[in-house]
Parts: sequence; structure tokens; C-alpha cells
Amino acid sequence: MSFSYGKNIKISIFGQSHSPAMGVVFEGLPAGEKIDIEKLQQLLDRRAPGKNSYSTTRKEADIPEFVSGLVDGATCGAPLCAVIQNTDTKSGDYAKIADIPRPGHADFPAFIKFGGSNDIRGGGQFSGRLTAPLCIAGAICKQLLEKQGITIGTHIYSIHGVKDTPFDPVQVDGETLVAVSQKQLPVFDDSKGKKMLEEIQKAQSNKDSVGGIIEFAAIGLPVGIGTHMFEGIENRISSAIFGIPAVKGIEFGAGFDAAELYGSQNNDSFYYTDNGEIKTRTNNSGGVLGGMTTGMPLIFRVAIKPTPSIAAEQNSISLTQKQNAKLVIVGRHDPCIVPRAVPCIEAAAAIAIYDCLVDYIN
Amino acid sequence: MSFSYGKNIKISIFGQSHSPAMGVVFEGLPAGEKIDIEKLQQLLDRRAPGKNSYSTTRKEADIPEFVSGLVDGATCGAPLCAVIQNTDTKSGDYAKIADIPRPGHADFPAFIKFGGSNDIRGGGQFSGRLTAPLCIAGAICKQLLEKQGITIGTHIYSIHGVKDTPFDPVQVDGETLVAVSQKQLPVFDDSKGKKMLEEIQKAQSNKDSVGGIIEFAAIGLPVGIGTHMFEGIENRISSAIFGIPAVKGIEFGAGFDAAELYGSQNNDSFYYTDNGEIKTRTNNSGGVLGGMTTGMPLIFRVAIKPTPSIAAEQNSISLTQKQNAKLVIVGRHDPCIVPRAVPCIEAAAAIAIYDCLVDYIN
Amino acid sequence: MSFSYGKNIKISIFGQSHSPAMGVVFEGLPAGEKIDIEKLQQLLDRRAPGKNSYSTTRKEADIPEFVSGLVDGATCGAPLCAVIQNTDTKSGDYAKIADIPRPGHADFPAFIKFGGSNDIRGGGQFSGRLTAPLCIAGAICKQLLEKQGITIGTHIYSIHGVKDTPFDPVQVDGETLVAVSQKQLPVFDDSKGKKMLEEIQKAQSNKDSVGGIIEFAAIGLPVGIGTHMFEGIENRISSAIFGIPAVKGIEFGAGFDAAELYGSQNNDSFYYTDNGEIKTRTNNSGGVLGGMTTGMPLIFRVAIKPTPSIAAEQNSISLTQKQNAKLVIVGRHDPCIVPRAVPCIEAAAAIAIYDCLVDYIN
Amino acid sequence: MSFSYGKNIKISIFGQSHSPAMGVVFEGLPAGEKIDIEKLQQLLDRRAPGKNSYSTTRKEADIPEFVSGLVDGATCGAPLCAVIQNTDTKSGDYAKIADIPRPGHADFPAFIKFGGSNDIRGGGQFSGRLTAPLCIAGAICKQLLEKQGITIGTHIYSIHGVKDTPFDPVQVDGETLVAVSQKQLPVFDDSKGKKMLEEIQKAQSNKDSVGGIIEFAAIGLPVGIGTHMFEGIENRISSAIFGIPAVKGIEFGAGFDAAELYGSQNNDSFYYTDNGEIKTRTNNSGGVLGGMTTGMPLIFRVAIKPTPSIAAEQNSISLTQKQNAKLVIVGRHDPCIVPRAVPCIEAAAAIAIYDCLVDYIN
Repeated sequence: MSFSYGKNIKISIFGQSHSPAMGVVFEGLPAGEKIDIEKLQQLLDRRAPGKNSYSTTRKEADIPEFVSGLVDGATCGAPLCAVIQNTDTKSGDYAKIADIPRPGHADFPAFIKFGGSNDIRGGGQFSGRLTAPLCIAGAICKQLLEKQGITIGTHIYSIHGVKDTPFDPVQVDGETLVAVSQKQLPVFDDSKGKKMLEEIQKAQSNKDSVGGIIEFAAIGLPVGIGTHMFEGIENRISSAIFGIPAVKGIEFGAGFDAAELYGSQNNDSFYYTDNGEIKTRTNNSGGVLGGMTTGMPLIFRVAIKPTPSIAAEQNSISLTQKQNAKLVIVGRHDPCIVPRAVPCIEAAAAIAIYDCLVDYIN
Repeated sequence: MSFSYGKNIKISIFGQSHSPAMGVVFEGLPAGEKIDIEKLQQLLDRRAPGKNSYSTTRKEADIPEFVSGLVDGATCGAPLCAVIQNTDTKSGDYAKIADIPRPGHADFPAFIKFGGSNDIRGGGQFSGRLTAPLCIAGAICKQLLEKQGITIGTHIYSIHGVKDTPFDPVQVDGETLVAVSQKQLPVFDDSKGKKMLEEIQKAQSNKDSVGGIIEFAAIGLPVGIGTHMFEGIENRISSAIFGIPAVKGIEFGAGFDAAELYGSQNNDSFYYTDNGEIKTRTNNSGGVLGGMTTGMPLIFRVAIKPTPSIAAEQNSISLTQKQNAKLVIVGRHDPCIVPRAVPCIEAAAAIAIYDCLVDYIN
Repeated sequence: MSFSYGKNIKISIFGQSHSPAMGVVFEGLPAGEKIDIEKLQQLLDRRAPGKNSYSTTRKEADIPEFVSGLVDGATCGAPLCAVIQNTDTKSGDYAKIADIPRPGHADFPAFIKFGGSNDIRGGGQFSGRLTAPLCIAGAICKQLLEKQGITIGTHIYSIHGVKDTPFDPVQVDGETLVAVSQKQLPVFDDSKGKKMLEEIQKAQSNKDSVGGIIEFAAIGLPVGIGTHMFEGIENRISSAIFGIPAVKGIEFGAGFDAAELYGSQNNDSFYYTDNGEIKTRTNNSGGVLGGMTTGMPLIFRVAIKPTPSIAAEQNSISLTQKQNAKLVIVGRHDPCIVPRAVPCIEAAAAIAIYDCLVDYIN
Repeated sequence: MSFSYGKNIKISIFGQSHSPAMGVVFEGLPAGEKIDIEKLQQLLDRRAPGKNSYSTTRKEADIPEFVSGLVDGATCGAPLCAVIQNTDTKSGDYAKIADIPRPGHADFPAFIKFGGSNDIRGGGQFSGRLTAPLCIAGAICKQLLEKQGITIGTHIYSIHGVKDTPFDPVQVDGETLVAVSQKQLPVFDDSKGKKMLEEIQKAQSNKDSVGGIIEFAAIGLPVGIGTHMFEGIENRISSAIFGIPAVKGIEFGAGFDAAELYGSQNNDSFYYTDNGEIKTRTNNSGGVLGGMTTGMPLIFRVAIKPTPSIAAEQNSISLTQKQNAKLVIVGRHDPCIVPRAVPCIEAAAAIAIYDCLVDYIN
């Protein structure tokens, strides 16, 4: 029953949607590292609600207080703890959930698992709000990666089937990664971005929701991070990424498409560049072979299901009356969680990659 | 640099393709459990090479010796260790690998990671042969799951685009799961199976290889196994599954397709059955909500890339001569690893699910 | 660089002596357990400073705020986080430490380890103040143990050679354990307690300090908790206990004295009681054989060194001037840490034992 | 129920006294390290039985086979597995144990814990024989420490009250450590060694046994290894040391004696040596402050209880007849385990220190 992650670092996340506060404890940070709090806040702001027509109107400042681990803005070798107060909670909205579990939500298995004693307000510890402390830890890891010459970035690969231009798996560079991250809607092709927003608005006006796919890339990784078997970089990334609510799949490089390629197509040929570097002509492996980085861009995609909270009436059950029941969810919900999930994916990946990198530095 | 897995149980796998032996240490087994060795061997035999036209002619008995942990065939509370001797090794075949890394293999990152001191014979610890001890541990977990009323099964979902009938995500039953597992080619639709074999043979005759997708299902799971965040059942399963060489993606339930559904389509409505059980009408969640089992069938699919070892000449590099080089791989290799990967996926999933189940029994 | 403890539960402690706050995250609590906050506070109050002539005059309310994990005073299955604000900090007192490391303190190795970027105010993360969050977690575990019929207690075994009556290793009962814990100075023999206080006052008036030994007992433990090798109950307890500053040794049962006994003396003979229970006539094993509990009282003693902060002038070095230097420590310090360490030992032991117990319940 | 140890490295020990084999899996070894097998065997030989009048006549070759992890005698980055066959087993000797638990042994709690399904032959996994694989792992760590300029050594501090000259906690040097280790009876003062042997023989002729204290020292450790709280070097060492059967206590530096010193006596004053090194005049801390190494010799002592298996008749119970019973243990047993425990303490400490050192190198 752990909310902890990490082998070399330890990320322990606490809080419920409506608990007094939530936050993260981060152990294993190197000492003497200046943390750029403003930059950290920018990543947090990218996931914050209430910024767009397509996100919930719940407004949370989501400004972390660093209660330990920093001295004059730099790590001091003690565990870092950051706390976010939960202020804009309207617990009244959720009264019914105790009785009628919301389809697509954790309500039902949580009720059974915890015998009814779990915190049902706002989804409790299963709320997407818990990705805020995840983003704090991820933003720190992102900065630590940057100091090692590693740049990471994320964009919306698709929303409800509308596809953005994917990352070039061989050529993608750091400038591109930084630029797309800074956009309000992180897509390369703004015309596709416009269509994505139309899909979201259409779903919203139908009291419905949509999902999508997020694509991540990291460049500058040294060769040989991660290892085979259970501590491969794919294992570690996936075990962090599935910590984000609504994730239903992950694929590296060519991923599921690789299943339809011939070996001669899928294999990435090595060659020497003019500079004497070793690269591959293609990058179907997504920068990972045998659980280890190849030095090529590390690329994966993540499937995000449509927001389960929709305004339309749904079929469910009444646990107290032990019979079928109708449910109408009121309250504030995103018709599409994908844009706000983008920095979360980035954060989770940064944590996993940094954790693997420490093995390598080792 | 760990080959260990597990939170409640601990699976530690050792060996290289051509080391004197390989095996597994399994800690945390309950005491007094009879292990059906014959049944265990059946699962191992399903992954053994040399049985079919489409698998390598390397012949290994792969009969484990249980050197500790069992007394009169039952667990005794001590760690179980099973050892498989590596007998049919032809190290001569691999001499070139030290110089010319094979595309799609771990050779290159391993060389950099280990500074050239890794065991390159047969791929060393990165060899698919290490899935044999994984299957030993998995077969034990499968038997322990069965004692808890949980049945698991796996079939080939597709090979090179030829699709078998998928599991019915709502209705799939234990009999079906057991039956399909026992087939030499584990597919429901034998006409599709025939076409799959044709695809494999075609690739082989072209000195090429193909990949595919494997689908897993578990039924009988209690509600509420796993938890949110980093210890969800999806996190744990994925971190085990990516331990199998050639896996490039995993998706639960509707998976990547969920990204194109509306929330109203993707949400699985709860209802009371006539028996008073709580079920869902659909099972797009794949039996997992909030990282916890819902009591519906647990379903995931795994993408397997085409075998990287192909007989055709490939482009690569010479590490010693620091220039581009051609490579022709000789030796014995599967033109399609998918059929032999089926029991490995089953084993890894059994381990992960059993590890989660112990939390629940707790 | 971990401040985490636990296999089944996870205790993660954060904070520095003068950071804005300190606290603990507790993962793995069962859901639906009412926590008696008043009782918890009582344990915290036993370690709080400023209560006696023999403890520092630093006054900290040390009242934890539970920011997550509780709903209506009961655990909800989410990680519990408790935060204590650091209010009465006088960082000015510690300015010199950055240059002249205090003998017997962590200053010097911390300076080298963290390259000077550690938080030197009040000893940073090495401060005894961090035992406050430890006591929060321990108080919770103590309550959970009580619900399983397990009673724990601790008394001062000796201060500067003045010995209290030790626990009767065979007969000690729960009433005795509870009673001694509630005393302001937790000793059985008050005349010895008076002499202990005299020793402390004498040391204080000499600008010096004294140490002592603390004895712990637990009764009601089921047989067979813990296991052999690295997860024995002695291993787990000791690895928690050495987390408390100033601990220099631990011994179970007859401990170091066992080294001078014959086997025929040291062996505890089994016998059936009139009730048909299995007990031992003596308890030199301290209730542990082969890393497992025997059902007899679990007994250990812990050596606490004299407080390293003394008022007398001491020899040290100046790190900046790279030469020998004199040091006079000003500020508020306990002339004897033993009385305040008593609840900390109890807390650490409660955590370790509860963590082992979960394995057993399992 | 773990037999695993380590944070950066992972040591997993398997086997029972009479299982076909026992051994160890060692994960996390750096690649490319030559292992001196002869030197490793020397450490194993120091614990091997059958060499002296005071040790059991059971004769086991105890020559490990390295079945994985080594290529041409050097580590290859894959987990190392070493296996020792159990050849000289006389299971018949132990038939009674199933019914009448031996005082001072794990038989009784093991019977309850495992419901009678544990391996009772020779003590099963609780046998001291399992320290043989521990010594394999320890011998490897000792070699890795030596490559980092760290020398460790161990001697018999006392047997049944007869005391050897202790290590000089300030001046002890590497030459001394190596020399004492190579002696058949590792003591400085041979006249005391002679008396120790007399004590052992006297006990043996009385069908009894004796215990003792072992002292360990490590020199050359860098400053700052280990950290505060639960990952201090004392925590890690103690949690490894208590894995050795018969250990009942551990103390660092002045240890329990520190409880009777004044702070002014116990504090170790820092000073600059003529070479500009920072040392302390005394070493009551045993080379550890705040869980971190100080650069001074790391020193601890371990209490070893007298061998519980004695030839004299003892009182116990019959589990089947549920009544008191007499027990006479036949079979081969050491009248004093201390000499053979010396290399085991060395091995466990080497493992713990190396595991901490990896954090530091990090």
C-alpha cells in the first residue's frame, strides 16, 4: 500500500483531494543543488486547473511551501518536503459518491478495499489532484536532469483521434522540446490544436468527455542507463507513469506498431556519424535496448482515457440499497484531462529517468 | 542494477545465456504449499526451444533442480532456489558480437555500460534464456493463484497483423483460459493460427522475422487488489512485463483505443446481477480502476517486437575499427518469438498479481 | 540517503532542527483505525523539552497537525502525514558550528559529506528534534500493537552507573509496563531515581553531561514474528533504534552477559504451564530465537552516550583556519538525554515490531 | 520473510542445512572486477568446520561453484550466484527435533511460525551453515573494500570472560588487522588464546559450551559514509550482523561503557595532525558520528552466546505429547562457536560497509 517510488531517490506522496494539505517528501537529493523555484512553479502551473475553457473551474493556487530540505534555496542533504494547502474544496458536491460509485472512477474498488473507511471527498487519495505533488518532485528531477545535459519534453500526440505531428524519433532536439512545452496547448501543429479544442468543446456540450495520447521525449541521455530484467528503464518509467490516474497504456519507440513490422524494418542500424559518434539510422527502439538507453532520443507514448466524470446521466448502483441506480455527477470536471496530464507525464518520467541516472552516475 | 522483483515476495534471477547455470531465488513463499512440479514443467515446456519449425533448434532440457526451499515437494518457509544447467551452448557462434553490435539487441549499450567486461556469449544476461527461471517463479505463483480461485490465461492476439479472436473482456471464463493455454499454438481461431504460421515461415524464408501481440486475462480476482499511485496493479504488472526481452508496449482494457472513445462509451456501468453480484456491463477498464482490481476480468495486451536476430545481412559498426561494418548473424534464432513469449508473459503477470494479492490477504 | 524505515509500513521522516517544519509520512496503515490523538500526544509530551530541570529550556509545543490520512480521526487508507512547526528556533546560537565542529556531534562528517551545504542550524537533520516525528509514528504503532494485545514499556535502566531495578524477564506484565511509563522519571526504584537526578545535576553544575541505559519490554507478542537472517526481529529493531541520536549499543536478553555464561546456564528450558501454555523457565534469549519471537517477553537494552553538547570548553578545530581551536558551546542543552530518549526508544521499537507483526498477520 | 540484504547491492541467501545445496545471489556488483577466488576461499576456510578440536567434526568441503556473474574470473555486470553443495549431511541425527524443541534454538518458534512444515533437518534455514554463503558475499565485498583502500579485520575480544588485548581504537593499522586475521586462533595475546582454548575444552568435557565477544575494526574509510536516521552506518551494520545466529548484542566504540562516562570524557576532540589531517584524540565514538563515518577506525563488538547445542541432558517439552520432556542432543556441535563466527562477523560487516560505500561513491 505504498505511494512511494524510487530506488536511489525516494518520492513519497501524501494527501487526499480534500485533506487539509497534500505534498511530497523527496529523499536522496544531492546536497548543494540550487532549485529554481520559479521554473518549478511553471511546471506546476501547466497542470493547474481553472486556466482554460477546457479545464475545471476549481481554482487552487497550488503554490508549494518547502518546509524542509532547502537552505537558501539549495538542497542541504536532508529530505525535502513540499506542502500544498487544499483550499478550494467543496466537499458537499461529493456526498452521493459514498452510495453510488461513479463509473470509471476508483470509488467502487476503494469502497470494498477499505471497507468504507476511505476518504470519499473528491476521490480521496485517488484524485488527480495528487499529481500536483508529483509535479513538484518531477520539476526538481527535470532540473537535475538539465544539469546533466538531459532535456525532456512532452506534447499532445492526439486528442480523440486528432493527431499532432509526432516527434521525429531520430532528429528531435532540445530546442524543439523546450519550445513545445511552453505553449499553452502543447502541440506542434496549431491547426490540429484548434481541432483538438473543437473536439473537447463538442464533447463538453454533449455532457461528455474525450481522451488522447501524450508523447514524451528525452535527449542527451548517456548510453547504458537502466538495465535488463526488472530494473530496465522501460520498467521503471512505466511503473511511475501508471501512477497517474487515467493512464491505460504505454509504448516505447514503435511500440504496438513494431508488432506489425519485419525484423529487417524494426531493427535500428548502427552507424558512425561524421563526428565519430555512434547513432542509429532509425529509432524504432525508442532509445532503449535491453532495458538500457542507447543514446538515441528516449521516446514513449501514453494513452489517457476520457475523463470518467461526465455531466450526462449514467447507470450505476446504490451500495446501500443494493440495487441499480442512476447517477448524475455535478461539480467541476475537465471534459478532457489530456492537456493537464502533459506536465504530469513529464514529471513522472523525469523522476524515473533521474532515478535510473543515479545508478549510472554511480 | 537489480534483477529482483517484488514487494511481498522477492524474485531474484541469476545467470547468463552461457554461464554454467541460471536460476531463480524466490523469497516470501508461504510455508506448507505443495508445488506441482509436473505442472510447473508444463509451463516451462511451453517456452522451451526446439519444439517447432518456428523456433530455434537449440535444444535445452530446461529441467530445474530445486536446491532449496522444498521438503517433500512442499515449501518449507525457506527461500526456494531452482537451478537450470546451461548445457547446449555454442559460444563460438557469438565471437563477432564483441566487435560488431547486433541491431535491435542489447550488445551496444551493454558494451558501453559495462566497459566491455559483460558476458557477450549468447547475449549474456540480456538473453531471452533468462525467461526460463522467470517461468519457474511464474509457474509457482500461478499455482498459488489457483489455490485462491484465480485463473490466468494467455493467447496470441496477433502475429504480424494476423489477429486471433480477442478475449471477451466481460464473459471470459476459466475453462476458456485453461483450454487455450494448452494448445500448441495458443489461439482461439485455428485458421488464423495457420495464417500466423504462414507469416512466420514467409519471414523465415526471407531471412527475416516477425512480431506480434499477446493478450492476457485473469479471472476470479477479489475486488481491491493493488492501490493507487506507484503500487497500482498496472504499475506492478508493467514493471514485471517489461522485464521480458522484446516487449515494447503494454495496454490495459481498451488501452490505446480508449484514447479515441468518449467518456460515455469508455465508462463501464455498474449493475447488480441476478445473484446480487456487482459487475460492469462493459470492461474497457480491463478490470482496473484507480490501480485496484474491480472484480471483472483483468485484461492486458503486450506488444512483442520482431526477433532482432535475423539471417539477412545488416548494417552495423565495428567498435574496434571505429567504422561502419556489415553483419551477418549466424546461429540458431526464432523467426518469431511470440509463441514462446506467451508463457513468459503469463509467468511475469502471475508473479506481479500474486505479489499484489499478498498485500490484499494481508 | 534515506530517512525511511519499514518493509510493510513505510515511515519517512523529514525536517531539520530549524527548518520551517518537520514531520512524518506513514504509509501502509490499515484503514478504519481510530487514532487516539490525546494518547499520542502523551507519548510526544514525554520527549518534549522544557519540562524538567534536567532538560533544555527550549520550549516547543510539538503539537502535530495531521494534514492527511485521517478522516474523522480514523485512518482512511491514504498515507498519513503529520507536521510539527518549528517555532522556538534561535539560529544565532549556532553560527560558530559552521567553522568549529562540536566534538561528539555530526557536524564534522556532515560538513565533509555535504561539502558544506548541509543545514548547520541546530544540527540540521542530525538534531535530536527529529525524534519528535519518530514519536508520532511510534505512538500510532503502539496503539496498533495494543489493539493486537501487545503491551510495550520502557524504563531507565541506569544513568551514569546508577541502576534501577531491571525488568523481570520472565514475569514482567502489562500493568507494570504501563505504570512505569507514566512516571515523570520512568524508574521502578524512586530512591535510585533520586540518585540519578543527583548525578545529572552534578554533571550539569560541572558543565558536563551523563549518559545511561534504557530497557525496553514487550509482552503479548505471538510466537514466530520475524525471521532468520536479515529480517529477524533483532535486525529490524536494531536498525530502527540506531536511528535515534546518541545510541551506541543494543543487546537482547542477557546480551553481552551471555558471552560469559555456559550454554547450560544461558539456554532457556521450555516447559508446559498448568494452563498448557509453552514458556521458558528463564529468558536469557530476550524473547527471540532464530530472529523470531518466542512468546516470552521481548527485552532489549540500549546504551545512550552522554550528551555531546557540554558547557565546558572543549578542544576542536577551525575548518576555515585549518588549525586547532577552542570551542565553548552556548545555547540550551540537556545535561542528560536519557529521560527524553525513553519514549523515543519506545517509539522506534513500536515501529519495528509493528512492521514485523504485519508480516505475521500476513 | 526475507533473506535479502542491501540497498545498493542485494545479497540473497538460499538453502537449508540439509537441502541439496545452499548459496548466494549477489546483485549490484560493479562490472570488470577480478575476484581473487583463492583469497575468497581463505575466508571461507576460516569458518569451515572440522579443523580444530573445538569445532564440530562435520566435514564439508565448502568450495563454492560460481554458476553465474563471472567471466574469466571477473564480474560481468550480471548477478553473481555461488552454490555450495551440502554433502556431509546426517539427517538421522535430528529426527527428535520435530517433537522436542532444543532450548536456545529456533526449533520452537519455527515450528509455530511455519505450522510444522519447516525443514527441521539440521536446523533448516536457521542453521549456522547458512553463514557459508554469507561469507562468500562478504569475502567479495572485502576485496572490493580493499580496492578502495579500506582494510578490515576481526579478532576474538573474549571467550567466557578471558579477554584478549583490544584493538587500539585510535592507532590500529592495516598490518595489524591483516596479521591477526591470519592466525588460526585470531587473538593478539597468545597466552590468552591458550586460556580461551582451555575454557572451551573444559566446557566440552563438561558437556557444556561457552560464548564470547568478537571485535571488528575497519580503517581507511572516507569521512561521511552512511547517514542519519535509519540509514546510518550503525543501523546498516547491526541489521546485517544480527543475521548471524547466536549474536545477542552489538556496540560501537565505547558502547555500553559510554553510558558511564561523562560527556567531557566520551567526546572525542578533533585536532589537526602534522600532516594537516583531521583526527580525534580518542575514539569513543567508534568512528561514527550522526550515523556517518568520521575517518577514524570504525570499531564495534558483538556478543556471541554459548552454543545452544550441548551434550548434557536438558529440560524441554514434547510437542506431540504436550508434556514436559528430557532432551539429549546427539550429533556434532562446536563447544564454542566464537572462533568460527569471526570470519562471519567480518563478512557481514564487509557487506554492510560496502553497501554504504556505494552510496558515498555515488
